[in-house]
Amino acid sequence: MKQVKLGLCGLGTVGGGVLNVLKRNQIDINARAGRELLITHVSARREYPHLDLNGIKISTNPMDVALDPDVDVLVELIGGTTLAKELVIAALKAGKHVVTANKALIAEHGNELFAIALEHQVSIAYEAAVAGGIPIIQVLREGLVANKIEWLAGIINGTGNFILTEMRDKGRDFEDVLREAQALGYAEADPTFDVEGIDAAHKLVILASIAFGMPLQFDKVYTEGISKIAPEDVVFAEELGYRIKHLGIARNRTNKGIEMRVHPTLIPESRLIANVNGVKNAVLVKCDALGANLYYGAGAGAEPTASAVISDIVDIGRSLDNEADAFVPALGFSSGKLCDFTILPIEEVECANYLRFSVLDRPGVLSHIATVFSDLGISIEALIQREPLEDQDHVPLIMLTAVTEEKRINKALAQIENQEFIRQQVVRIRVESLK
Amino acid sequence: MKQVKLGLCGLGTVGGGVLNVLKRNQIDINARAGRELLITHVSARREYPHLDLNGIKISTNPMDVALDPDVDVLVELIGGTTLAKELVIAALKAGKHVVTANKALIAEHGNELFAIALEHQVSIAYEAAVAGGIPIIQVLREGLVANKIEWLAGIINGTGNFILTEMRDKGRDFEDVLREAQALGYAEADPTFDVEGIDAAHKLVILASIAFGMPLQFDKVYTEGISKIAPEDVVFAEELGYRIKHLGIARNRTNKGIEMRVHPTLIPESRLIANVNGVKNAVLVKCDALGANLYYGAGAGAEPTASAVISDIVDIGRSLDNEADAFVPALGFSSGKLCDFTILPIEEVECANYLRFSVLDRPGVLSHIATVFSDLGISIEALIQREPLEDQDHVPLIMLTAVTEEKRINKALAQIENQEFIRQQVVRIRVESLK
Repeated sequence: MKQVKLGLCGLGTVGGGVLNVLKRNQIDINARAGRELLITHVSARREYPHLDLNGIKISTNPMDVALDPDVDVLVELIGGTTLAKELVIAALKAGKHVVTANKALIAEHGNELFAIALEHQVSIAYEAAVAGGIPIIQVLREGLVANKIEWLAGIINGTGNFILTEMRDKGRDFEDVLREAQALGYAEADPTFDVEGIDAAHKLVILASIAFGMPLQFDKVYTEGISKIAPEDVVFAEELGYRIKHLGIARNRTNKGIEMRVHPTLIPESRLIANVNGVKNAVLVKCDALGANLYYGAGAGAEPTASAVISDIVDIGRSLDNEADAFVPALGFSSGKLCDFTILPIEEVECANYLRFSVLDRPGVLSHIATVFSDLGISIEALIQREPLEDQDHVPLIMLTAVTEEKRINKALAQIENQEFIRQQVVRIRVESLK
Repeated sequence: MKQVKLGLCGLGTVGGGVLNVLKRNQIDINARAGRELLITHVSARREYPHLDLNGIKISTNPMDVALDPDVDVLVELIGGTTLAKELVIAALKAGKHVVTANKALIAEHGNELFAIALEHQVSIAYEAAVAGGIPIIQVLREGLVANKIEWLAGIINGTGNFILTEMRDKGRDFEDVLREAQALGYAEADPTFDVEGIDAAHKLVILASIAFGMPLQFDKVYTEGISKIAPEDVVFAEELGYRIKHLGIARNRTNKGIEMRVHPTLIPESRLIANVNGVKNAVLVKCDALGANLYYGAGAGAEPTASAVISDIVDIGRSLDNEADAFVPALGFSSGKLCDFTILPIEEVECANYLRFSVLDRPGVLSHIATVFSDLGISIEALIQREPLEDQDHVPLIMLTAVTEEKRINKALAQIENQEFIRQQVVRIRVESLK
């Protein structure tokens, strides 16, 4: 049986997962691959007493692994975008294939890395970079190859989805659940990356580039987090038949451009993706031949991520002797076939909107607000108004608008927000039917 | 750009879909494939005025297509297991790769066909044979390659799921919905294949063989249809927190053997797969590294099926110049690595059970039944008993048992069914927690 020699940089959570799964399922994995997968060299900065590194060469300098002539595939699992980038470039230039789980690296430096890989006729695989163990990269690049993709929407950050699920199930508020998520190890001490949508934006830009065939443009993703979602918005959404999810959405608005955005979103509770709860991930894809299709599973964690890393290793291992033009292209489209679509600024995006006003309880307020929307040609699809509580002089007023250009909603809100009957900033959450 | 020359047998629903999608999305598909996909030869028994066959050679005898030296890949879309089998064998022996959407052909003759393909160093691809456009074959063979699969459960017949969804949503009975499904074109004039589970069994045996790495054994699938599901069972299931779905289930009961079964199943309503409605398909896979993961989409129809057929064509097209050992093996495991697991007879299967007794409303009946179960060591997990309607002397009695070997349930029912207080055959539906 042919051997595939692996050099592994990074023995943290994911690296440990890869070692453990490869060892535990070795017989089946090799039987499927038709190759013997062999870790020949790892880099480690310290002792890893819980890992079995028997018979594996260990170096303190990861660059020794990346440049080892006895390594066919570099598996980069150290994370970050500085040393990781250097290692990956060094390995590619040395004619080695690369497997990485590093979403930031691909989202921010993918174009450069893919060009280097192409030049050296090797491939760089990154299934684990998006939605953990869900094989969504392979699905988009290969399974859906026949389709024009219209849009995709993903729950691609497990921490955020855990928080929103708890807020809904138990009526808890954001800060409270965030603290629990940190205690459980789902959220980092600095949760910005997860809850402000940066992690999701990294993943979204990768999905969107493959879906539509365009270079990665991380800086053009509109990103909004979930930290301002209040428990009452979760309740009102429910009353209107919706759930609030933190979605990454990419849509091809033919002839206009591409939307790429991460933000809290009301979606109809009857949609399958509205029922994806806890730390799980899911990606819903709408395309012309297949219609709507959805992929669900664990988006993070040692072994789910290892599952994706190993599938990349097997794929590369099987292709080691192939012509370079037999590789699946990095972003799914052959070199030179990527298009330079316009990415629409958020003002040009079209959405329905959930709006919650806190207004003084007096005559004329509703009519004033309704007139502003009507004058701007924005339809109101649903409305909730409640009586004030006994000791309060203001009431919540909830509206669902029809699908409208973002800049028109902005204009309406600008006209309303400076009125003295408005008691606090208007809450605005976008709504998607996902049909 | 290299060309991939396709010979297409069968211009029915799926064949037409393949032609249309290939034509509509030609530019993107070729850009992704890095190859020009070209239909050079089709077989047609009659005129197809709605299809654009311009520039394509047309033969009346499909064997002329299968043996055409100007064809690299035979696309078999005529269905059935006689002529289709001859065509596929002829093409494989002529050194051509084959793509087929034919589940019956693969399920019943796959072992033979795969051996011929292997001998002639070509591949036979069949993504479209299971769950239509959902790329579940690729997921199982490649995406989940690192995992030991514990079990999988699929809604893999859209007609059956449409019927069960309508029964639940509208309280209609089986016959009534079946007639509508036939009128809508979802169900054939002879619906046996769909509603009695044969179609699902064809698909299940393929999924199970890939999941566990064993030869196809269609004759060992236990198969039970949905035609006996009554509206009141749907209602009682709901009351207990369950939905009834027609599932194909395969489970590896390590050291004992493999379960392969198609039957109506109660599943907790909170499971994502319980919310897969209408004609859609979904496959839930439980594996050791990734955990639970689910794949959802259109399981039938011209273009969804074409989506899968074309993904196979692109995959093969990209690999035309590769060494044969770079192909993904037909059942996911390299030649000679398939295992001859025991397939458990249905009596050895372990399930929880929903039981509905129709009993005379008189003292001692419940205690008699409870004693039978208790004596056989079968726990009762839930129970519903209703007062009789005014003019009736019998009542429904509903039980959920704990997980029990099938043969023990059979024994209990045999002891109960011959009692004179039983008014009609006991209804028994298996229950799966899918955890």
